[in-house]
Amino acid sequence: MIIKPGDLLASINSPADLRKLKPEQLLQVSQELRQYIIDVVSIHGGHFGASLGVVELTTALHYVFQTPYDQLVWDVGHQAYGHKILTGRRDNFHTNRKYGGLSGFPKRKESEYDTFGVGHSSTSISAALGMAVASQYKKEEDRHHIAVIGDGAMTGGMAFEALNHGGATNANLLVVLNDNCMSIDPNVGALKEYLTDITTSRTYNKLRDELWNVLGKISKFGPNAQHIASKVESGIKATLSKQSNLFEGLNFRYFGPIDGHDINHLVSVMEDLKRIPGPKILHVLTTKGKGFALAEKDQTKWHAPGLFDKITGEIYKKHYDTPQPPKYQDVFGHTIVELAEKNEKIMGVTPAMPSGCSLNIMMKAMPDRAFDVGIAEQHAVTFSAGLATQGMVPFCNIYSTFMQRGYDQVVHDVCLQNLHVVFCLDRAGFAGADGPTHHGAYDIAYMRCIPNMVVAAPMNEQELRNMMYTASQEGAGPFTIRYPRGEGVMPNWRTPLELQQIGKGRTIQEGEEVAILTFGHIGNYAVDVCQKLSYDGINPGHYDMRYCKPLDEELLHHIFSKYSKVITVEDGCLQGGFGSAVLEFMVDNGYTSQVKRLGIPDQIFEHGSQLELHRDAGFDPTAIENTVREMIGVTSKVSV
Amino acid sequence: MIIKPGDLLASINSPADLRKLKPEQLLQVSQELRQYIIDVVSIHGGHFGASLGVVELTTALHYVFQTPYDQLVWDVGHQAYGHKILTGRRDNFHTNRKYGGLSGFPKRKESEYDTFGVGHSSTSISAALGMAVASQYKKEEDRHHIAVIGDGAMTGGMAFEALNHGGATNANLLVVLNDNCMSIDPNVGALKEYLTDITTSRTYNKLRDELWNVLGKISKFGPNAQHIASKVESGIKATLSKQSNLFEGLNFRYFGPIDGHDINHLVSVMEDLKRIPGPKILHVLTTKGKGFALAEKDQTKWHAPGLFDKITGEIYKKHYDTPQPPKYQDVFGHTIVELAEKNEKIMGVTPAMPSGCSLNIMMKAMPDRAFDVGIAEQHAVTFSAGLATQGMVPFCNIYSTFMQRGYDQVVHDVCLQNLHVVFCLDRAGFAGADGPTHHGAYDIAYMRCIPNMVVAAPMNEQELRNMMYTASQEGAGPFTIRYPRGEGVMPNWRTPLELQQIGKGRTIQEGEEVAILTFGHIGNYAVDVCQKLSYDGINPGHYDMRYCKPLDEELLHHIFSKYSKVITVEDGCLQGGFGSAVLEFMVDNGYTSQVKRLGIPDQIFEHGSQLELHRDAGFDPTAIENTVREMIGVTSKVSV
Repeated sequence: MIIKPGDLLASINSPADLRKLKPEQLLQVSQELRQYIIDVVSIHGGHFGASLGVVELTTALHYVFQTPYDQLVWDVGHQAYGHKILTGRRDNFHTNRKYGGLSGFPKRKESEYDTFGVGHSSTSISAALGMAVASQYKKEEDRHHIAVIGDGAMTGGMAFEALNHGGATNANLLVVLNDNCMSIDPNVGALKEYLTDITTSRTYNKLRDELWNVLGKISKFGPNAQHIASKVESGIKATLSKQSNLFEGLNFRYFGPIDGHDINHLVSVMEDLKRIPGPKILHVLTTKGKGFALAEKDQTKWHAPGLFDKITGEIYKKHYDTPQPPKYQDVFGHTIVELAEKNEKIMGVTPAMPSGCSLNIMMKAMPDRAFDVGIAEQHAVTFSAGLATQGMVPFCNIYSTFMQRGYDQVVHDVCLQNLHVVFCLDRAGFAGADGPTHHGAYDIAYMRCIPNMVVAAPMNEQELRNMMYTASQEGAGPFTIRYPRGEGVMPNWRTPLELQQIGKGRTIQEGEEVAILTFGHIGNYAVDVCQKLSYDGINPGHYDMRYCKPLDEELLHHIFSKYSKVITVEDGCLQGGFGSAVLEFMVDNGYTSQVKRLGIPDQIFEHGSQLELHRDAGFDPTAIENTVREMIGVTSKVSV
Repeated sequence: MIIKPGDLLASINSPADLRKLKPEQLLQVSQELRQYIIDVVSIHGGHFGASLGVVELTTALHYVFQTPYDQLVWDVGHQAYGHKILTGRRDNFHTNRKYGGLSGFPKRKESEYDTFGVGHSSTSISAALGMAVASQYKKEEDRHHIAVIGDGAMTGGMAFEALNHGGATNANLLVVLNDNCMSIDPNVGALKEYLTDITTSRTYNKLRDELWNVLGKISKFGPNAQHIASKVESGIKATLSKQSNLFEGLNFRYFGPIDGHDINHLVSVMEDLKRIPGPKILHVLTTKGKGFALAEKDQTKWHAPGLFDKITGEIYKKHYDTPQPPKYQDVFGHTIVELAEKNEKIMGVTPAMPSGCSLNIMMKAMPDRAFDVGIAEQHAVTFSAGLATQGMVPFCNIYSTFMQRGYDQVVHDVCLQNLHVVFCLDRAGFAGADGPTHHGAYDIAYMRCIPNMVVAAPMNEQELRNMMYTASQEGAGPFTIRYPRGEGVMPNWRTPLELQQIGKGRTIQEGEEVAILTFGHIGNYAVDVCQKLSYDGINPGHYDMRYCKPLDEELLHHIFSKYSKVITVEDGCLQGGFGSAVLEFMVDNGYTSQVKRLGIPDQIFEHGSQLELHRDAGFDPTAIENTVREMIGVTSKVSV
């Protein structure tokens, strides 16, 4: 279906076209842009509420600043749909997040307007500061650098690190704080309360606004007047006390808060800000989902709702006649409550992903034992370590890709001290439509190299439950359980809890000549492959290894003694991953079987469905089958 | 030499003994404690200035709080010498940082008073908050949790993440901000300026102090009075405006700043603070090196000066008759300046380690091109990525162990975008006396699994220079160079710069039967071993691989075709490291040589000299020699 943009939007093929319009036309542009996002996302899917919330902000930024010369960095980037539509990607926008289509996030390869690839939170100020410092060095004095960051992303520690550095420079950096009180879930933490305070505290801000108005007018009379204005201001500021605002405390000039949906005011404020050099922050209040009533009302649900009827607001769901397997995240969410009901030591920790990882179930059932700590992976890990020192058993649930941000804390605070923290890594392996920034490709490699760490992956819902149960037992130590985005394979998944022996795999089938060793959910592909091959009289062994660390050495001795050909399959990187762990065992023990490792090769994979990505990476069912067939016909080279 | 503590200090075998003393005796305790630290460190070495700065603070904390029931977390921990001496480790203190002796940092295994192991910066608030939340859950209402954190560590993002979370709880948490304006080098950034501002701004703080005095007195009249006091205070606070202080903005009650060397005032303030529930911050001003004039004057030099004459202040240096090899860090420091003089795109970035990594040489020579960004590894990486988008070539120098903290940024901001950032990882491999928190054991494994990343290690000074030169060339992309703490091997190290071919190793000697493949400086051991073995007519091949990624496949084909026995040697973890990369090549290419991988096994190694640790881990010269000899006498098992 072709979706027609409104008349003005249809005429905008780049921000240069936008800047030809009169200010009084911008309201219409915003309205058309919002409608276009609703039209496309309702049919093609994607993130929704965030982009609706910044329609006016996006329009104003491209109207006022000379993008792409002026550099705009979107934090996280799922709010950048309007930006994409205004910067030459309107007619491709329906391919958003589809295989081969536009990325759901800004991406340098996609457009010169995407100055910095994003996806993870809180990077924008650092990146924009780097650009600004480079501009300063190159004497590009007229060039502006703008980071647009949400109040949720502002709780990420690196945003604060960047403010601390930026405030000590005189780089030409504008931070736009897009304050909508939301991450994917409602924001938490003291910063949120603080922002609400400044938003509602009138007197001080009024004084500040008036001052700024006067000075803005003076500075229009040229550089000399600007100098005078700046002197006047610093005098007044001194009397107002320097510590009056958190951001001013960090030496960013603070402006706002202003209404982020008043396009004309936004434009006029930004025009004025262009003339103020140095680091500054503009606090903008927006509503996530703005302009689509249901999305404004239930912002978490409408963060990325899937396809929906834009008139009635009905979100389409697939209907099935039979029970379907649950999402792994929901198995986690329900099972942790079940475990915690019997074991009072268990606690839950999530950095701002309660609905994404389903810890919200525990937060509702046991609010004193489940914590959303904000977008703060580092803190989440060490906070969990602190809990563990007191005999608690924290389950710290972090997406595999975001765990990278807490890596040092896993090494230094958990594993070195051998503390009993259970890491549940959701979205491990290819994440699908979210693309390369969100693929959880490296966790097996970066976790298994840390002493004391157990690394496990369930092949199905029952294994996830049993691994969680096993990991919760006294004395277990640091424990990682990784599982993928999406559904498992067991419609009846509420199986009785059984303890596993840590480091023990299981035999799915004994076979001949070739053994397939799988790690995690991906093992289900091998089950299908083995069934198919059996019709041709080919019977590989299949082993669900369950634990990449410690490895089941007994089982591996059996396998390498019995099979001359071994295939390892993992939804993770081939460099240093599960397959490499198997190689290390093999060579350390003097075996010389032929081994083919299937997994994610050493390259960046873009977005697409998980199956498409498994196919491209060479470990979908067809690839596994072909590997078995090829190996059966091939013998190994032997060195001298 | 036996070092005698002063009379009072001699009587303190635990904080319980300290607490038996009268307040007026504490001054003497502090003086004796300071003297004891000077006496021991001057003879036995270790960190110096930091512990001198917190002598009074340490004494006061243990006097006022019921440690170990009340829980004290020292951030970083190199300031915890006084704490160790007062908590039962006085007579072992001379073993500090020596092989088999006390750790230079707090460590849970060492004492129940060490509530949390530290070494890396900025973890204390998260850990203490975890403890406090656990206490709350266990209804230990009388239990106090104290994080002592420097103003340098406060710039680390995770400290801010923890404040954001902590401020939204009512956990019984006291953060003591030990403000001495220093990390190892002078602190940088806006926060430092801010702290100076509050320190010097009188009116507001006076008002606040008086208020607090009054309320403190009221609250002594019992819980009911406390309730009233709290109500009165919140009323007054509302009128003062809530945004008056950065920490109050985050909902921590702020007290101070107070003189951190006035022991009696510290004790009285802390006694009062014990009665104030919820999250609170005490801002304490101290002088690093306090009480040792030279250390107060040049705080960076006296951070960890080595052995010295405590009377004259002469720092002992070894004298050599011949020129000695330089430290790798100095080769880095001089070479980056040399490169930058010829290539205007080169910039330098360090997170608070200018003297530790020798970027201070460039910061002095080219202040507009070399940046200390504060204790902020995450920001350092993404800031570098931002610079790279503008065509700059940033050299981002981070200790291997601290790189763990910027891991996500390396993956997400640098490698995914294939940006040209050069990471120089100092202190890679065993760090020596700093111990397990500082060993750079995992970088090969966690770096080589990221697409686009080059991973190199120089065997000597000349290779480091040439790798830096090679990495600076246009089009090089993400590039890691890892090198160890300490000296290289070339007294005449200022060799002409030569381009390397990325991914090419070099043959040190061709040999027979056994090949030794080394990665980095550790290859010098193999040179010695080969020479020694040659006297017995044993001639292994020796290859300095230089690049772990990309591997020199041509050279590896040669090696695996020629040798049936291969030894890999690396100063890094065996799980997924250099040796594993070699195994992956071998098996992927159908070779079946016998391979022994030498490196850091999968366990935690404590502190000691680098040679002691190499020996314990099994890759010192003796181990390499023995491995060659054993392999020559052993044939490989072959599977069916």
